Amino acid sequence: MKFYDCITAPSPRLVRIFIAEKDLEIQTQYVDLRNGEHLTPEFSKINPFCTVPVLETDDGTRLTSTQGCWRYLEEKFPEPPLLGTTASAKATIADLVWRIETDGFQAVGEGLRNLSPGLKDRALTGARNFSQIPQLGERGKERARTFLNQLDGMIGDKEFLTGDQFTAADIIMLVVVDFARWIKVTLPSKAPNADRWYQSVSSRRSTRL
Amino acid sequence: MKFYDCITAPSPRLVRIFIAEKDLEIQTQYVDLRNGEHLTPEFSKINPFCTVPVLETDDGTRLTSTQGCWRYLEEKFPEPPLLGTTASAKATIADLVWRIETDGFQAVGEGLRNLSPGLKDRALTGARNFSQIPQLGERGKERARTFLNQLDGMIGDKEFLTGDQFTAADIIMLVVVDFARWIKVTLPSKAPNADRWYQSVSSRRSTRL
Repeated sequence: MKFYDCITAPSPRLVRIFIAEKDLEIQTQYVDLRNGEHLTPEFSKINPFCTVPVLETDDGTRLTSTQGCWRYLEEKFPEPPLLGTTASAKATIADLVWRIETDGFQAVGEGLRNLSPGLKDRALTGARNFSQIPQLGERGKERARTFLNQLDGMIGDKEFLTGDQFTAADIIMLVVVDFARWIKVTLPSKAPNADRWYQSVSSRRSTRL
Repeated sequence: MKFYDCITAPSPRLVRIFIAEKDLEIQTQYVDLRNGEHLTPEFSKINPFCTVPVLETDDGTRLTSTQGCWRYLEEKFPEPPLLGTTASAKATIADLVWRIETDGFQAVGEGLRNLSPGLKDRALTGARNFSQIPQLGERGKERARTFLNQLDGMIGDKEFLTGDQFTAADIIMLVVVDFARWIKVTLPSKAPNADRWYQSVSSRRSTRL
């Protein structure tokens, strides 16, 4: 197996944390996104979508989405389970992960990519250039703020998002909270449940890598 | 179990086909999206996100995303498998489903919701209104066209997207091809593999419901 990572980017961090929670050692190649290494002809041969994460499995298959990477790792290395064990838990985690990706991760990404001067013409990830749409950036930022305002209620008095087990839902939520800082969106000042949860998950070894 | 559906909308169709492929009979309630039933106080008690599909499981959990509904049904009713059987197949299907949703389904949705006069202020699904962004609509339409142009190569000489088994990747791809007609985006004129695949999957009983 081989993992293509970039320490500064939120998407590969989703997979890096997952790998660390399972205590796996996987050969890792770092891709220098800041200097455009993902857009070179060499990297586009590895992943024509020009994105990380990429997980190359032992049979040579290259998985180019977090969902694909997570599913492979969960099936090959079931312990500790991060995508649930019962039908109900698996479905609830899948539901939450989708929601956090759509209403949180994508909102922050829209905010950043459509407003940041350094990302001109890079309004979407991938091989092609797309012009920024400032109105979409503002909408993303506002949606990200609304989403983070809901986190305190989502956590409630539970230890983790779905109960007393750390799961992939906590991984993507943590990454969204940290990613949102890039567009100056933070948890609201009074969010004691969210604060407690954040302290807990951000002090795990896996999330500090 | 109870399934909240709407015959005219693409998202619940993803779950309706999945249910039919597994030959399940699930109590179904139809939600009249055209007349705004999803935005009423009554329906928002069932799903505060004001969207369909919703799958209510026997323990009362309400799953409000296609990913959550699919996962629950696959785990409870494994036959026939639609999300893969081996680690490699499961991961490849998850990867493809994510790609088709992101580059296909979302692109068509952006095109439709940001350009259609009938969807003014409904640029996103959900409880809140958002203004249309015409530039995002045009970008969505262009991305949808690019995506459908790739389908012939994605199918190649295979029977289905991932080989000789019909999977959830075929379900979402079929729904994207049909959904794209709403914004007048169709398969290119010379796409024999895609045409053969489309004839095959669109003539299944599950996809004609």
